[in-house]
Amino acid sequence: MIPQSRYTARPMKHCDTLISPRWCIPVRPSGEVLLEHAVIVTDGRIVDVLPLTDAGQKYQPSISLDRPDHVLIPGFVNAHTHAAMTLMRGFADDLPLEAWLNEGIWPAEKRWVSEDMVRDGTELAIAEMLRGGVTCFSDQYWYPETVAESAVDLHIRANVGTPIIEFPTAWAGSLTEYLEKGSELVHDAYADHPLITSCFAPQSSAALSDDGFVELRVLADQLDVPIQIHLHETAKEIENSLEKTGMRPFERLNQLGLVNSSLLAVHAVHMEDDEIAKMAETSVSIAHCPQSNLKLASGIAPIIDYRAAGVTVGLGTDGAASNNTLDMLSEMRIAALLAKARADDASALSATAALSMATLDSAASLGLANDIGSIEAGKWADLTCVNLSPLHSQPVYDPVSQLVYTARAEQVSDVWVAGHHQLENGDLTHIDTASIRARGNEWRQRFSGEISWS
Amino acid sequence: MIPQSRYTARPMKHCDTLISPRWCIPVRPSGEVLLEHAVIVTDGRIVDVLPLTDAGQKYQPSISLDRPDHVLIPGFVNAHTHAAMTLMRGFADDLPLEAWLNEGIWPAEKRWVSEDMVRDGTELAIAEMLRGGVTCFSDQYWYPETVAESAVDLHIRANVGTPIIEFPTAWAGSLTEYLEKGSELVHDAYADHPLITSCFAPQSSAALSDDGFVELRVLADQLDVPIQIHLHETAKEIENSLEKTGMRPFERLNQLGLVNSSLLAVHAVHMEDDEIAKMAETSVSIAHCPQSNLKLASGIAPIIDYRAAGVTVGLGTDGAASNNTLDMLSEMRIAALLAKARADDASALSATAALSMATLDSAASLGLANDIGSIEAGKWADLTCVNLSPLHSQPVYDPVSQLVYTARAEQVSDVWVAGHHQLENGDLTHIDTASIRARGNEWRQRFSGEISWS
Repeated sequence: MIPQSRYTARPMKHCDTLISPRWCIPVRPSGEVLLEHAVIVTDGRIVDVLPLTDAGQKYQPSISLDRPDHVLIPGFVNAHTHAAMTLMRGFADDLPLEAWLNEGIWPAEKRWVSEDMVRDGTELAIAEMLRGGVTCFSDQYWYPETVAESAVDLHIRANVGTPIIEFPTAWAGSLTEYLEKGSELVHDAYADHPLITSCFAPQSSAALSDDGFVELRVLADQLDVPIQIHLHETAKEIENSLEKTGMRPFERLNQLGLVNSSLLAVHAVHMEDDEIAKMAETSVSIAHCPQSNLKLASGIAPIIDYRAAGVTVGLGTDGAASNNTLDMLSEMRIAALLAKARADDASALSATAALSMATLDSAASLGLANDIGSIEAGKWADLTCVNLSPLHSQPVYDPVSQLVYTARAEQVSDVWVAGHHQLENGDLTHIDTASIRARGNEWRQRFSGEISWS
Repeated sequence: MIPQSRYTARPMKHCDTLISPRWCIPVRPSGEVLLEHAVIVTDGRIVDVLPLTDAGQKYQPSISLDRPDHVLIPGFVNAHTHAAMTLMRGFADDLPLEAWLNEGIWPAEKRWVSEDMVRDGTELAIAEMLRGGVTCFSDQYWYPETVAESAVDLHIRANVGTPIIEFPTAWAGSLTEYLEKGSELVHDAYADHPLITSCFAPQSSAALSDDGFVELRVLADQLDVPIQIHLHETAKEIENSLEKTGMRPFERLNQLGLVNSSLLAVHAVHMEDDEIAKMAETSVSIAHCPQSNLKLASGIAPIIDYRAAGVTVGLGTDGAASNNTLDMLSEMRIAALLAKARADDASALSATAALSMATLDSAASLGLANDIGSIEAGKWADLTCVNLSPLHSQPVYDPVSQLVYTARAEQVSDVWVAGHHQLENGDLTHIDTASIRARGNEWRQRFSGEISWS
């Protein structure tokens, strides 16, 4: 037998998809912009990122896609939302926070939240998010099993939070039942599912007694599931806690043993220096929701301080009742702009850092940084392609800058989730958007009292 | 002769265009949302706003347009920009203000600004603005006569500012020459032009000596032309003035006789209470540019205080080198959100108030409120139509809220400027966008040193 020469051309490898964008921004290594490169996808995973000429010699793709005016980035990871609340988009705007909750949102939810409402609202949210380049979202809402089902049906990645409180709702009657239903979701229904992960999501520190938090912590530790909670969103929340417990919410959670690397603090608008140091020391992560914090007049979170201390800061849109879109491009831009103003320094947060917040840092905040958030071989092929040819993004000196400071969601041309091509040249190819729009409008009529529940 | 019965049907009147949107928001009266109404346009003017059924009996239009998912509003008035700087979009991002100006923008301008550069950059800006629903912009840049020409060529309304300084540039050699060229623009070239008005635009209080300001004031009074100036944009600007003149810039302008109803203070980020009272008393207007103020870390202007005092606050995008788009929908949303956060009150600035800022108040700040800024019979037919059917704007509880908090520029379907249909169903029908894009890219190559000037 003649040994094969090392100079013989190697056989071409089959792959599912070869994507060749004008620019590829892998996010890790930070700051890198690849020109004339291809991203290779097979079986839902990124298998290679290499120069286009090498790709042509090495891979034989089923589908090959040129995107000559486009930048390819990791799919956006929306670190915090309440997806079904798209049905309440603009329902109670321009009200002070207390009135917004007590007179607007909560009575409407009490009247209308149901499995059907959650399905219809979540589908509207997922369609909007896929259209805008979001490939993963972390949710916190009633009927989380329905949220998970919708995510699987419409094929988007989701980190599904089980609401945990101590009073009965239509979904569960007691703390025990909330915890049981959460365990079921984590353990039985979606264990090792390729798209779904879970977390426990107490609404705020006021949602549970000390005993309740301890019970939650024991279960979360046992199941190895993270906890996400609205924390220090408003000055009022901190005041109320001080009055009731003598402690700020963060300190109370710390004493109850919840301050650790499994904790995702949502909002974190008002934090003292010692709290920031403690968060860094214990690897607590943050979900920053700047537009919601402005709209509800909660304040501007000191994310430059968090980042300087080494705290992971992910980015989220919050729900559509307080934003009012689930648009991560807009959220990323405003996060960058606000950070500069808050820090009194125009170089405080660069476009590169903002993109990392919206992708890899968000993934890290959800404990998913090994699986998604950057374009690296081995990770899921969760990818977003953005067209920079529209006039308002021209000319292009720096694609990262144009992406962060000029691009709008309509410029997202293609989205892949675990290799599935969910948005193709701006079309949501697998989603019945007419039905979603019609159901959204029916819910509007119910919420407004124009039609009664049938 | 038999007298005509008063009950005989009146003859139908001819009109150019009948537009029937789902919702019409005239902006004046404030808060009004008209359903099943038509707007009638003839000879470039709005001639009637009336119920659709009446319109069918009264008018015989050449063109009749149904916009069944759309909201019709007055065209956006961009109260402050430097249009040609679109060519420097993203050229020097994420730098502190001093470095941005001294190392990025100014050397590049010194090297490259010319009549051709201003034409190409201004056309890019105009195309972007028309696409995004802007029907009028106030500009401040070199070669203002070229800005005016481009505006007329591409048919958009412009308030063209003549730069006034005391040092020589490629465009003019001395204060006298700047003033002469400005007078020419106001007096000879565009007097009574239907699309063009003018103003004098000293860059900042540091641009002129006391004598220079007095000379400018005398001429502006004589020609009855407004003055716009960057004023109290940064804390540093105020410091420098205090050091050099012993006065804050506003106080200095006041002593020199420039603080009056002809003054448009651009930015006005840092104003003391007594200065606000003085602005109200003297009817000074403000051009608020929130995104630029964030991006350059200048601060957040106290527009709730201005409005409470009775000061007119218009809205502008500033130039694309510091924003980085000329997108008034985005500017309007951020203005509303920031005002809430700055005032610590989620009801501080409503969606209705934000829309008024971006249209009628901007028009008023430029002295054009009798001609544009609202949908009223007699005003120019400067109109913008926005489609609210995309999923991220659904469902629609309140069209004003959806417009301000969810709509993106791609949803602008139609734009009329003085009755000319410049954007039709999302297409810039009269503009060669390929040529504009190509020229933009050539300038990028020159600015980046990739090609030399030919």
